[in-house]
Amino acid sequence: MDERFSHLYAGRAREIKASIIRELLKMLLNPDIISFAGGWPDVETFPSDEMIEIATDVFRNKAGSAFQYGTSEGLAELREALAARAREREGIKGIDPDNILIASGSQQAMELAGRLLIDAGDVLLVGLPTYFGATGAFKIYRAHLDGVPVDGDGMQMDVLEEKVRHHQAAGRRVKMVYVQTNFHNPMGVTLTLERRKRLLELAETYDFIVMEDNPYGDLRYSGEPIPSLMALDSNDRVIYACSFSKILCPGIRLAWVAGESALIRKMVVTKQFVDLCTNTISQHLLSEFIHRGYLDKRIELNIRHYRAKRDLMLEMLDKYFPSELIWTRPQGGFFIFVTLPEHLDAGALLKEAIGKEVVFVAGQPFFLDGSGRNTMRLSFTGAPADRIEEGIRRLGELIKSKV
Amino acid sequence: MDERFSHLYAGRAREIKASIIRELLKMLLNPDIISFAGGWPDVETFPSDEMIEIATDVFRNKAGSAFQYGTSEGLAELREALAARAREREGIKGIDPDNILIASGSQQAMELAGRLLIDAGDVLLVGLPTYFGATGAFKIYRAHLDGVPVDGDGMQMDVLEEKVRHHQAAGRRVKMVYVQTNFHNPMGVTLTLERRKRLLELAETYDFIVMEDNPYGDLRYSGEPIPSLMALDSNDRVIYACSFSKILCPGIRLAWVAGESALIRKMVVTKQFVDLCTNTISQHLLSEFIHRGYLDKRIELNIRHYRAKRDLMLEMLDKYFPSELIWTRPQGGFFIFVTLPEHLDAGALLKEAIGKEVVFVAGQPFFLDGSGRNTMRLSFTGAPADRIEEGIRRLGELIKSKV
Repeated sequence: MDERFSHLYAGRAREIKASIIRELLKMLLNPDIISFAGGWPDVETFPSDEMIEIATDVFRNKAGSAFQYGTSEGLAELREALAARAREREGIKGIDPDNILIASGSQQAMELAGRLLIDAGDVLLVGLPTYFGATGAFKIYRAHLDGVPVDGDGMQMDVLEEKVRHHQAAGRRVKMVYVQTNFHNPMGVTLTLERRKRLLELAETYDFIVMEDNPYGDLRYSGEPIPSLMALDSNDRVIYACSFSKILCPGIRLAWVAGESALIRKMVVTKQFVDLCTNTISQHLLSEFIHRGYLDKRIELNIRHYRAKRDLMLEMLDKYFPSELIWTRPQGGFFIFVTLPEHLDAGALLKEAIGKEVVFVAGQPFFLDGSGRNTMRLSFTGAPADRIEEGIRRLGELIKSKV
Repeated sequence: MDERFSHLYAGRAREIKASIIRELLKMLLNPDIISFAGGWPDVETFPSDEMIEIATDVFRNKAGSAFQYGTSEGLAELREALAARAREREGIKGIDPDNILIASGSQQAMELAGRLLIDAGDVLLVGLPTYFGATGAFKIYRAHLDGVPVDGDGMQMDVLEEKVRHHQAAGRRVKMVYVQTNFHNPMGVTLTLERRKRLLELAETYDFIVMEDNPYGDLRYSGEPIPSLMALDSNDRVIYACSFSKILCPGIRLAWVAGESALIRKMVVTKQFVDLCTNTISQHLLSEFIHRGYLDKRIELNIRHYRAKRDLMLEMLDKYFPSELIWTRPQGGFFIFVTLPEHLDAGALLKEAIGKEVVFVAGQPFFLDGSGRNTMRLSFTGAPADRIEEGIRRLGELIKSKV
């Protein structure tokens, strides 16, 4: 590709590299491919009938607002509905619309947090592994990123504290810890209640912000819900991001961000120069979707739908994958994380898998330190149920030929 | 407001100040106010019936795509339609979908251009006055902003060249010139063909990019169209941003950005970590809106509608404003720019006008150098036609009491 104007690019453009997942997406337009790659919801869960009903009503009766510019913080009636849900369903005490910003997806929430908080060299601690959409957003601001190991109970708090002390002793500013509390991407694990409480203590002791990214929290298929950091926090240390991409649909491009009101206010002003305001058509569609009680029903349907798919994929893994491999057994979300034998490279495996028309995401890009070569992320949500067995069978055969 | 966490904010947060216009918007929710403030389209122009028809079809027949994630560059069929329109209606030769990115409004286009091109200290030349949403986006990246006077023929090219030479002689990098070619915000003036050609020569001579922001170009009410910089450019120097906010509706949050294909590709990758992709529901609605021929019809209707409003406001200005004032007579767009006598401060006038329930935007924030205290921007599009006379009468009386 001719990079005629690369001499005019900003230095930060060097940090801007195509997301592996985003690039894989193009391949997914090929309908013969069985994809366990993207964190895509199943198209079967999309609520066409309800959206036709709502769009008809909104475009007829609220056109003057739905088609117009909106405020940068988002539609008041939507923020009110979300605050009420957060109090009632999540036990987040005292949250009100002033604590909420409507963002164009949670990727934007991360971008806004980075923009507001991170100076070059500020330390930002993330999981090892962690979702690279987040680290990609933070890298632009030249954060000093460091990884904290994640095990079956989530991020390891003792290591986190050590790292914080290490960086502070070296004179660096630890600004933020980014964590996915529920059904972690890519590992599928959930941070335990004990570790959540410890993380909040550490935030207060060492004066940092915790960004809690919770796109999958409503999609729990087994086990008991654990209160969010946002619900547990009594010191306003948490920025909480929840997406509608996984529980409703990604095309609507909506997420909400909650936090201390002055910080949210500053984030709102930050957003003005990013995109003025979030899509008002989408906000009206979602607001009505909630007010008509469709969201709760949809979440219930999705839980049943994805629980069956998770169970199916776990069953097929038991059936087709060599027994020396290990994988997580998530209680919710979208992902199963597989650890291959040390000598196998999941990236090389992916190339062969593409030849067999089945794709996944190699784990290494989720590891800041370049480890995880022998890991892979499997998404059980996007592929039709009747292709899951075939896809896992093909992958299992391929792996068996290597071990 | 308690700024509890301001010690954790990034340095750039100091550059983030609430947009005066955005803050005014809240006031506009009061229906008694006659507003000439925001650059808002008239709600009467919003195409409710067509959108109900299209949403019903899209949500029924294309749900799997409309509700799903999309590629970061935007919906292929939409980019194809826009490329075809650009070739046919605008005479932009050779433009194809690879030259086009779909953005979440043109504010995002500016943000992405800044993100991709501007290092701290890079010189960015803008009009004096210029749209402050653009300068706000660029300031985040610590651009060295400098203003070039705008007269009735648009930005003054001789001053621009002087400034470029001055900055280059001082060892500074001149990266970009930002210009609104048609019906300039806030002045309503249009850059002449001669100056357009000269600007492109200067870009090639001095090796900079021109960002052509053209949200109003399709809304010409009188006079002859002038080819865009994008159409005139044979050196790929132009990044061209066109919004659907003014010709269709802002709530759909869509704009398109065109440029040299490698630069657009880099911008696409830049966008991945900003918001993954633009709203796919909106993109499908717009794509069908174009394919069904509704956009061209809507533009024609809007031209008739806004021409009448422009003519009405100009008539009322002649009738009610003191004859010592001067104002622009725009051939299109949304704005009339009024220059008050030197001793009058439009900001102070605005405060009194609010008491009389009529608002406008004071001109000074559009001037980088703090000049323009005695100027005001009047938008003739948003207020209902039957309120325009009353609003201008109130303003005229207020001004007459001062001169």
